[in-house]
Amino acid sequence: MQISELSDRSGLTVQTIKFYIREGLLPKGSAVSATRSDYDGRHLERLRLISALREVGELPISAIQEIVGAIEDDGVSLHDLFAAAQHAVGPHVAAPHDPHWRAAREDVDALVGELGWTVGAGAPSRDLLAHTFVALRRLGYPITLKDLRPYVKAAAEVAEHEVGRVPAGTPRARTVHSLLVSTILYEQVLTALHRMAQENASARRFDHA
Amino acid sequence: MQISELSDRSGLTVQTIKFYIREGLLPKGSAVSATRSDYDGRHLERLRLISALREVGELPISAIQEIVGAIEDDGVSLHDLFAAAQHAVGPHVAAPHDPHWRAAREDVDALVGELGWTVGAGAPSRDLLAHTFVALRRLGYPITLKDLRPYVKAAAEVAEHEVGRVPAGTPRARTVHSLLVSTILYEQVLTALHRMAQENASARRFDHA
Repeated sequence: MQISELSDRSGLTVQTIKFYIREGLLPKGSAVSATRSDYDGRHLERLRLISALREVGELPISAIQEIVGAIEDDGVSLHDLFAAAQHAVGPHVAAPHDPHWRAAREDVDALVGELGWTVGAGAPSRDLLAHTFVALRRLGYPITLKDLRPYVKAAAEVAEHEVGRVPAGTPRARTVHSLLVSTILYEQVLTALHRMAQENASARRFDHA
Repeated sequence: MQISELSDRSGLTVQTIKFYIREGLLPKGSAVSATRSDYDGRHLERLRLISALREVGELPISAIQEIVGAIEDDGVSLHDLFAAAQHAVGPHVAAPHDPHWRAAREDVDALVGELGWTVGAGAPSRDLLAHTFVALRRLGYPITLKDLRPYVKAAAEVAEHEVGRVPAGTPRARTVHSLLVSTILYEQVLTALHRMAQENASARRFDHA
């Protein structure tokens, strides 16, 4: 297809597509003449991934360059590729140098060990959880593995579903795209439904209290 | 207890406590002498709720005044009180005047109806979910009730646990406090664990892909 069709189908302007090519995010099309190049479905797929990373994950160009580089490097496993992309998305919470934070972060590491989960030592999710532990303790809510069980169970079931729904043989770029959409957008779906479910559960228990 | 002890136990300065009294967020203590008042456990509990609303929910004083007023008004059911507080917390996403958003919001309302959940017509969670539906559709992910099932199930189980863990006979202020901590902080726990669970599920499926 020509660049105008690629623009129509991706919803991105020709100018934006040319910018992504200059920045090395999108491979050049194959030259048909001195002024025309031909693009295919892989270009469209790549553009959709870049859009998702930019708009939904709000990632800077440099982070997207890294992810795109890893997609093309077959030496990087699909898991390492997804983990790198998920870590780039963040959120990156500040890790203050204080004993409360240190203790919370150690508890998180112990929890991950106890669950036997494979989670990178530098995963932002570890810091995010530690950050939440600090806030909960400050408000007088202790944290034990027993308290966390329902959350661990819910998170694991949703994640298994998300990773499991990617069809076998899906191209690397498409797989990472789909998993990141789960990380960012379906996470918001879960948050919104959690709030609704709370309101519903509260109505059932406390409507006349 | 004197205001100095209330300050120690709440972690708030005497100045902040006096500010909350002036703003009507905290009832005055009972006068012991011309310059001294006596405070009790209810004052401490109230201060913890205000702190949670301010620091964790980042609510403005005016919203906290409303919630505190509703706590003292026995004509407001505990459920209405919690729903009002949860709605005040947000997040409040913009509801643009475009057909995609309108269709998504109608789908959300239909979904809530199908689930039979009690969720206020003006609940920000409805808009948040609609917002996410728009983004998912733009990326080419259709939304069906079947796709949402695992999220609905996880959200409902977690919410039932959260509402169920409040002991019977807990005072209104404490109940709202506890539920809001679930809304804000345990939601972050769920988010962090979801990211970890994704990374773990990805490692198991894609480590050698």
